[in-house]
Amino acid sequence: MNYRMIAYTIGRILLIIAAAMFIPMLLSVYYGEEIVLSYLIPIIISVFCGSITSFRMPENKSFYVREGMVIVGLGWILISVIGALPFYMSGQIPKYIDCFFETVSGFTTTGSTILGNVEQMSKSLLFWRSFTHWLGGMGVLVFALAIFSSKDTRATYMMRAEMPGPIVGKFASKWQFTVRVLYLTYIALTVLEIIFLIFGGMPLFDSIVHTFGTAGTGGFGIKNASIAYYNSAYIDYVIAVFMMLFGVNFNIYYLLLIRKFSQIKGNDEVKWYVCIMLCSSLIIAINILPMYNNFNEAFRSSFFQVSSIMTTTGYATADFTLWPMMSQIILVMLMIVGASAGSTGGGLKVVRVVILARTAKQAVRKAASPRSIFSVKTDGKKVDDQTVHGVLAYFVLYVIFAGVSILLVSFDNKDFATTVTSVIATMNNIGPGLGKVGPTGNFADFSMLSKFVMCIGMLVGRLEFYPILVLCSAYMWKKS
Amino acid sequence: MNYRMIAYTIGRILLIIAAAMFIPMLLSVYYGEEIVLSYLIPIIISVFCGSITSFRMPENKSFYVREGMVIVGLGWILISVIGALPFYMSGQIPKYIDCFFETVSGFTTTGSTILGNVEQMSKSLLFWRSFTHWLGGMGVLVFALAIFSSKDTRATYMMRAEMPGPIVGKFASKWQFTVRVLYLTYIALTVLEIIFLIFGGMPLFDSIVHTFGTAGTGGFGIKNASIAYYNSAYIDYVIAVFMMLFGVNFNIYYLLLIRKFSQIKGNDEVKWYVCIMLCSSLIIAINILPMYNNFNEAFRSSFFQVSSIMTTTGYATADFTLWPMMSQIILVMLMIVGASAGSTGGGLKVVRVVILARTAKQAVRKAASPRSIFSVKTDGKKVDDQTVHGVLAYFVLYVIFAGVSILLVSFDNKDFATTVTSVIATMNNIGPGLGKVGPTGNFADFSMLSKFVMCIGMLVGRLEFYPILVLCSAYMWKKS
Repeated sequence: MNYRMIAYTIGRILLIIAAAMFIPMLLSVYYGEEIVLSYLIPIIISVFCGSITSFRMPENKSFYVREGMVIVGLGWILISVIGALPFYMSGQIPKYIDCFFETVSGFTTTGSTILGNVEQMSKSLLFWRSFTHWLGGMGVLVFALAIFSSKDTRATYMMRAEMPGPIVGKFASKWQFTVRVLYLTYIALTVLEIIFLIFGGMPLFDSIVHTFGTAGTGGFGIKNASIAYYNSAYIDYVIAVFMMLFGVNFNIYYLLLIRKFSQIKGNDEVKWYVCIMLCSSLIIAINILPMYNNFNEAFRSSFFQVSSIMTTTGYATADFTLWPMMSQIILVMLMIVGASAGSTGGGLKVVRVVILARTAKQAVRKAASPRSIFSVKTDGKKVDDQTVHGVLAYFVLYVIFAGVSILLVSFDNKDFATTVTSVIATMNNIGPGLGKVGPTGNFADFSMLSKFVMCIGMLVGRLEFYPILVLCSAYMWKKS
Repeated sequence: MNYRMIAYTIGRILLIIAAAMFIPMLLSVYYGEEIVLSYLIPIIISVFCGSITSFRMPENKSFYVREGMVIVGLGWILISVIGALPFYMSGQIPKYIDCFFETVSGFTTTGSTILGNVEQMSKSLLFWRSFTHWLGGMGVLVFALAIFSSKDTRATYMMRAEMPGPIVGKFASKWQFTVRVLYLTYIALTVLEIIFLIFGGMPLFDSIVHTFGTAGTGGFGIKNASIAYYNSAYIDYVIAVFMMLFGVNFNIYYLLLIRKFSQIKGNDEVKWYVCIMLCSSLIIAINILPMYNNFNEAFRSSFFQVSSIMTTTGYATADFTLWPMMSQIILVMLMIVGASAGSTGGGLKVVRVVILARTAKQAVRKAASPRSIFSVKTDGKKVDDQTVHGVLAYFVLYVIFAGVSILLVSFDNKDFATTVTSVIATMNNIGPGLGKVGPTGNFADFSMLSKFVMCIGMLVGRLEFYPILVLCSAYMWKKS
């Protein structure tokens, strides 16, 4: 294990976070809030620690998967620890565990909140809260990588730990160029959404903040009623469509740019992503029709919620805990399916679900003809056995982790729906769940243990398990 | 597909069921109930259909996996269709779908009931209801096989479709001898439990009927309060221990008989089965302690419920829906884990869970050192890749099936806990779930669609998916 290299890279990450916190500090000066020190002190801490550890590039630059895992795991935990300080120092969130929960929820683009009344928070803190979504969305570390533009092997190993989705091969090969395209697309879409929202009559500040939440598929709102506050079909559809766009594999935009339309057409994940989203919207719209005046209204509400949940954003325009159970079950399933690989969304990812479903199908066929050989395909090509095994193992890990988390959270003695969906909503980086953690509820009421478990869940979900688990497993420390 | 051979074997199965129904018919005569015709007519139907199709052994005896699957799948459905007739014709369960549900629940050793008040049923019907557990427990078809004592390849293929558990190799090789040992053990344990119960002061009829439910890990009771009715610590512990014994892999008894103790000692499944059961009992006992007078009482209640749920029996001495959420969550998890492979219990089976957990562990280690090679072991030996893949695929199939079932059942608009656990309780062949289907509730209130879905779930769970799914999949019909 190359500890010096780890320290160096984490130091650079701290410097970036310091720079990022500068923006809400300026805002707080602009708005004349008396919480400037709440930003300044964490910034000084970050700059101090970051400068010491990254003062000089270590001579031994060897860098392997394990180092990448440790950096990603530790990095996300550290930025959450420091990013939580402004909330704590301002006194607006009294308990540090709540500040930490809120910041982890921000950076992991989850959007679960412990705030009962967001509207009483300072504007600059609301900005910082949503800005963590935007930073987290693209991956603070991909961001960091692109800026540092290193040319060594570091990059691919970091990408493997960081990039969402099971297949990163093509991505990692030309990573530097790709990262640039990636975040230019991200910024372009962000700017576009802000313009669309302003055009719909949303104030500038609100537009920026809500766009941050959409881009990172995070979902922190600044109104207690979330997006329902604006009560505008135009705004609902703009945000719903942009959530959908940020949940698409960003490779697709790259393929669009270089005009490889045939590859997009043959992409199973896009097909299924759109198909699942539209079918779910339709079924729910029909299911909730009796609660609305007409199909248009029902569909507007259904499409927004489906897009919000499936992309793991978590904005709400309706309290879906009041919907019929079938709609709620569909939403819980969408939470688990999640968005596309290579997007800012969380969950299992559509491509994994497609591979899982096809594996199950092959198993049934194999049971009928044991001697035949079947293989799982995506995008018309055979998926190699190791990838299939990887996806299956990932799924098992996912279920086991969910089970253990639910067990620990159940100690709080909440009802079944709250216990189960609070874990599903956090580890899939959604935001709201059912029961007491529905769109109008919040996570304040949980014990410190449960909040801690859910923080781990959010991190583990965002980083696709391995970095955090590897960090925890004694095995890797033993071997080094 | 050798249709004549399928018809022949199913014919023999119908004859066995006719013979089985003869016993409750005699009982109904003995008790002077006026429902003799309710047995006689189905018996005549079975004998008639059975004789026609199995009149002559077909000349072409070729018999492969697909034929085995079809026989097992169709066989279980047919015996349920016919076994439901006595309930329907007696008029004591008015709707046929309810009779079918009750009979499927019986043969699959589930124990979920649609009866709100069991105590008003005729004694002979209560006997028949529990007798289906006993028949189902050992597998009507293993039973049939042993009687017909065929020497051709049929046997192994049938065993593969029928025997619970992922590894049947050793079992199938000397199948005829093993089947005999298997059911002698089964009968011996049954007789032993009846004696123990009578010794505890339980009436003869009650002892026999409750033993049927224990042996098949079914759980149909004959009192509205289930086992709590007897209010005896002795009876509670006798039944709890026997449930545990019937949930052990029957191979173990065979190894005990031939004195291969070292093989038992090295058996991972037994170790984990006992370990999970005792740990869960302890944790729940501590969790529910405030609700009881002392630890003894809490442990008695906790151990009984844990043994009942983990072995997928479903008897109750306490309404665990009133317990703290943590205890309820543990019970739901035990429902999914289930009993040992090669026992009469359902669920995923402990050995599968062990393999799944170890696969997940290896995946984490692999993430830290991608170039190392790891393998999954059970009983100290490497599990070959195909078996691991099979277990993983089975698990995915299991989760997908559960998801689809929950979605369909959610159409009934029950609460979240009821919707989710009614499916878990039926497809794992438990009996009761949480919410409205808890130990004091029943399944009468569901729609016809939900009952049908749960019937399929019970069959699919009991037969470990493949026979029923293969039967449904168009693929196998195409190929023949």
